[in-house]
Amino acid sequence: MCKERLRKQIDFIIEIDKLKHVFRRNVLISDRRNENDAEHSWHLAIMAVLLSEYAEEKLDILKVLKMVIVHDLVEIDANDTFAYDEKGNEDKEEREIKAAERIFNLLPKDQADEIWSLWREFEERKTPEARYAASLDRLQPLLLNYNTEGHTWKMPGVTSKKVYKRMEAIRESTPEIWEYVKELIEDSIKKGYLLP
Amino acid sequence: MCKERLRKQIDFIIEIDKLKHVFRRNVLISDRRNENDAEHSWHLAIMAVLLSEYAEEKLDILKVLKMVIVHDLVEIDANDTFAYDEKGNEDKEEREIKAAERIFNLLPKDQADEIWSLWREFEERKTPEARYAASLDRLQPLLLNYNTEGHTWKMPGVTSKKVYKRMEAIRESTPEIWEYVKELIEDSIKKGYLLP
Repeated sequence: MCKERLRKQIDFIIEIDKLKHVFRRNVLISDRRNENDAEHSWHLAIMAVLLSEYAEEKLDILKVLKMVIVHDLVEIDANDTFAYDEKGNEDKEEREIKAAERIFNLLPKDQADEIWSLWREFEERKTPEARYAASLDRLQPLLLNYNTEGHTWKMPGVTSKKVYKRMEAIRESTPEIWEYVKELIEDSIKKGYLLP
Repeated sequence: MCKERLRKQIDFIIEIDKLKHVFRRNVLISDRRNENDAEHSWHLAIMAVLLSEYAEEKLDILKVLKMVIVHDLVEIDANDTFAYDEKGNEDKEEREIKAAERIFNLLPKDQADEIWSLWREFEERKTPEARYAASLDRLQPLLLNYNTEGHTWKMPGVTSKKVYKRMEAIRESTPEIWEYVKELIEDSIKKGYLLP
């Protein structure tokens, strides 16, 4: 065994413990504390397994799982950027690439390359797997929002128009789920969780 | 589309948000707050991808990933049982089966069956995938313990003999990692993180 290789893998595994401290804008259903990226990534992984039947295109589900569990790692350095924060999104790419360079390169080169490639694919949203992962990444916070009286949607700058636009990824990859999502959004407007 | 089917899947996805509130005995490295089961399951999933080269037996890695992301779901009702709590482990099985019945059966039958089967396989530890998942499930808290001056190992009733016994799953499935783990345990004893 190459001890140096295992050492690098363990260093990376210890480093990513930090993802459990990167907090998102949305909150958990029962006690309304902010969700962190590790919890969010785990939730997406189970959703990926359970909802694959709704994907429009044939999927490599193993690739989807790998993608969702690594998709937020860069936020250890770059932090979570609120989806509806236009200013924060301006330099998001630059911050995240710098983070990827530091964090992924803790791994042996072949594995760093694999994580880079999964992350890039997720970000570019050009493959069925990346489109499906993006759909889940929209649906999960929507479910949390709907079940917490629109917690994040009540923040300044959020409107139903912007939410509809953001949810387009669901329409593209999982149109049957989109029908359900539209109902939730309309109901949220009716209930005052979201501005019309 | 069968609306009833999607509704069941969504109900389950919302229910398992609760796993983020099930706290384990071990703590996170940087701020020493207790880790929860969702975070732990996510961490195992990445480790499963990165460390598969050390498994003694050929693995279906997709099955391993599914297994680790669902392996603790029963703790939503049954709660985390501390590995070194002999009394708590007496009725663990009974509590967990009751929990599985309630939680898994929120899903459509075919998917409830799949989760049951993954969970049972993990618990029985008879397949290469289950043995590898068990190895990761031992290694992850060991890494957290080593990096928090033996936080959990300082609790009453924990001795190096018990820790060695618990880590046997690592020796069985990933013997090369076992060599590394032995060094960590010996170093922990030397540093006073763990009773000799």
